[in-house]
Amino acid sequence: MHGPTTAPGGLPPACDFTVFGGTGDLALRKLLPALYLRDREGQLPADTRIVGVSRSDHDQAAYREEVRAALLEHVDADRLDDAALDRMLARLHHVTLDVNGSEGWHELHGLLKDRARHEDTVRVFYLAVAPGLFGSICRRLDEIGAADANARVVVEKPVGHDLASAQAVNDAVGEVFEESQIFRIDHYLGKESVQNLLVTRFANTFLEPLWNSHWVDHVQITVAESLGVGDRGGYYDHAGALRDMVQNHLLQLLCLVAMEPPTYVGGETVRDEKLKVLQALKPMTPADVDRDTVRGRYDAGLVGGAAVASYADDLGHDQSDTETFVALKAEVHNWRWAGVPFYLRTGKRLDRRTSEIVVVFKEPPHAMFPHSEGGSTPNRLHIQVQPDEGMRLHLTAKEPGPGGIRLRPVSLDLSYATAFAQASPDAYERLLMDVIKGNPTLFMRRDEVEAAWAWVEPILTRWAASPDRPRRYPAGTTGPIAAATLLERDGRTWQESDS
Amino acid sequence: MHGPTTAPGGLPPACDFTVFGGTGDLALRKLLPALYLRDREGQLPADTRIVGVSRSDHDQAAYREEVRAALLEHVDADRLDDAALDRMLARLHHVTLDVNGSEGWHELHGLLKDRARHEDTVRVFYLAVAPGLFGSICRRLDEIGAADANARVVVEKPVGHDLASAQAVNDAVGEVFEESQIFRIDHYLGKESVQNLLVTRFANTFLEPLWNSHWVDHVQITVAESLGVGDRGGYYDHAGALRDMVQNHLLQLLCLVAMEPPTYVGGETVRDEKLKVLQALKPMTPADVDRDTVRGRYDAGLVGGAAVASYADDLGHDQSDTETFVALKAEVHNWRWAGVPFYLRTGKRLDRRTSEIVVVFKEPPHAMFPHSEGGSTPNRLHIQVQPDEGMRLHLTAKEPGPGGIRLRPVSLDLSYATAFAQASPDAYERLLMDVIKGNPTLFMRRDEVEAAWAWVEPILTRWAASPDRPRRYPAGTTGPIAAATLLERDGRTWQESDS
Repeated sequence: MHGPTTAPGGLPPACDFTVFGGTGDLALRKLLPALYLRDREGQLPADTRIVGVSRSDHDQAAYREEVRAALLEHVDADRLDDAALDRMLARLHHVTLDVNGSEGWHELHGLLKDRARHEDTVRVFYLAVAPGLFGSICRRLDEIGAADANARVVVEKPVGHDLASAQAVNDAVGEVFEESQIFRIDHYLGKESVQNLLVTRFANTFLEPLWNSHWVDHVQITVAESLGVGDRGGYYDHAGALRDMVQNHLLQLLCLVAMEPPTYVGGETVRDEKLKVLQALKPMTPADVDRDTVRGRYDAGLVGGAAVASYADDLGHDQSDTETFVALKAEVHNWRWAGVPFYLRTGKRLDRRTSEIVVVFKEPPHAMFPHSEGGSTPNRLHIQVQPDEGMRLHLTAKEPGPGGIRLRPVSLDLSYATAFAQASPDAYERLLMDVIKGNPTLFMRRDEVEAAWAWVEPILTRWAASPDRPRRYPAGTTGPIAAATLLERDGRTWQESDS
Repeated sequence: MHGPTTAPGGLPPACDFTVFGGTGDLALRKLLPALYLRDREGQLPADTRIVGVSRSDHDQAAYREEVRAALLEHVDADRLDDAALDRMLARLHHVTLDVNGSEGWHELHGLLKDRARHEDTVRVFYLAVAPGLFGSICRRLDEIGAADANARVVVEKPVGHDLASAQAVNDAVGEVFEESQIFRIDHYLGKESVQNLLVTRFANTFLEPLWNSHWVDHVQITVAESLGVGDRGGYYDHAGALRDMVQNHLLQLLCLVAMEPPTYVGGETVRDEKLKVLQALKPMTPADVDRDTVRGRYDAGLVGGAAVASYADDLGHDQSDTETFVALKAEVHNWRWAGVPFYLRTGKRLDRRTSEIVVVFKEPPHAMFPHSEGGSTPNRLHIQVQPDEGMRLHLTAKEPGPGGIRLRPVSLDLSYATAFAQASPDAYERLLMDVIKGNPTLFMRRDEVEAAWAWVEPILTRWAASPDRPRRYPAGTTGPIAAATLLERDGRTWQESDS
């Protein structure tokens, strides 16, 4: 997934990696463990520094203790060792800083300036804070001279709340940083199986001839969570499943399935092709929204045998129309995919946690086994993104036996865990290294984010105007019945991964 | 694999199954155990009789004892049970008969006539004797009135020694029996994985779009034996690998790979399509034979760690030019396969016993991972016919890891033994039942056999005229070096199944 300017496997450049929100949940659970694991593998140059920025009045020692405790909690025990921990903790600095105050910026400036080979050092600023602060931080970084050509800024989704607010965030960051310096993270793109989808499609001969409307009947993309909103209800209620999941994760997965082969995989090429897919999505009219989207909201129910509360109870009131489930039918209006529906669904408090892509091929054009027992089922390529990364090709075989032909479904399996002795790295391990190396392929470009909002916004608009409300579904199910009906009316069914 | 007139799973009709050569090796090792196993499964109607014909002066009791001993030896212990054995043995009759004498024919006549529902009873005559006797047997069967419309005759390969002798055998049998009554067995066609090749190709969508010269680089068919000629040297030395294996087994496998989709799988349709493939094989000129065929002959060597003798020592003299190994490059001159070589090889005393078909796909048209480590290897569909039946799709995946893209070969596997709880039946179990049911699909039709001889004969002719002799290869290897060179000169290599 490298651009042509970076040799694979080579060490990244020296780096000062600054995390705004350095004592926050994302930093402690994901970012610092990922950096630790890469450091343990010898993938961080000796002079790499990691700077946690937060409002807490930690001194360096206290911050190191906090991070040590976080690593002990969030890194697998068999990957913890004292030497690597000590090396990692020695890289840590802490700067106490209130973004909108004046304190601390001078200290940060001094720390960053204090480098021997200043001009070669990459500076990463990871903004693990509320989007409302992005603009201020970028301006202050500019003021202290830290936003030079060697600087990169990383922002997490959601970028915006709709097209206009996304543009506002992008404008604010873009005032200071060039687009090539801005890395918008969608951690789904760092998953091994998502990248393997590119390799499977483009380093093999056997899929690409089938990967079009001649042979593909439809595509299903499911991102199901068994968790509810928990204590994020306040945030979530202002977003909902469409903004929180479909606009980014699901549309990104759709893009990787549907995109044309780029000239090479690296640099801007993949993003160029993904943008073309987003631009080819058929815009939804209000009538399309009414017909082709389903909203849902979980009631109380049983998940894994345990009783769980309704969304209203999780939220603390029943005044919300926010959806915790979406299913919709999208169409990619281009030569390759004309007439092939892409069914997307995502939700909270569903029966299981899974992210998967299923490409369902058409039936063979002609039934050639007139007296066979058992029917042939359509061929399907099943790509499991989480929890267990893997790939499975479902096909029809002859059941052994000397009687008549009995057709039986079988699957050719590739389990990542079985095929490769090593565990898949966490998505952040790859993505943070890509930031340091300056490899933009797996990050969302401004035009992509805005094209996704442009497609999503008419759905939000129609939902707001519609007299319909989200359909209730019991927690622990596959969502509202209407999501099944969405496919059944086209003569199709959702492929559940255990089926 | 049924014709449209036979319901699958239904009981076959009542049958008198007569085996000429009833005390011979084929009958005792293969035919009677197969009939026992089908009988044990309840697949033979109660009034089915089995008649062993031989020159031995067995009475019925002695024959039953001989067959009982053979079943105890050749049937897996867990499939032996007294009730089934007793039922099977009670079906057995023995007729002492010298084909060219007059004794015994009257007794056979009396036995076969002695049936209640005479007109409905299928009569199978399995000629497990030397081909020189086929004509006489058929004429005598006709004389005793046994060759009526309900009769079927089964002959084993080799049918003939060249085109003219094959025609002579076919003429002799054809004087008495209609072509629809003649079942020429190639037991390879009864293998589960060979039939599954038809299901895989034609009950699935995903293979057929790839199954042509656009996407297939070449096809390899290997039938390797680790055994030598043993005590069959006298017979074998008059045949050789080309007659013994290529003319029938390997060309039949080639036909199943290369054939067009028939209208349905059953009746004459598959044989019609196989014939078209044989007729499309590019005829070999003497120059083609010199360039595109390799003959070999085994020397002493080590097979599985044990010292084994040379062909000359097995044969008892060194006056033979018979080949025990053949590799050749065939071309199917039609729209689908133009430019796609089919490389065939077979031999005795090779390093292992395996029968396999490997379809090697072309490289992706464009290398899209410019800085990847590891190369992509061509996709391959590997169909294992024996010893373990299975299928494997070799493809390229991304090795998990956060560094650069590392391409690694992986395989999607279907093991018959793993996928299906039941063991694959012996090929004869299916084929004998197909004979009784009158289903010709898996048997070689006269025009097929003769088309195969017509293609093979110019090779035999050129070899006889050529100053070259078979190349020596040490037992326990993959054959003569020249067989590797045959592919290397085209920029290809044999795919060994453990590679």
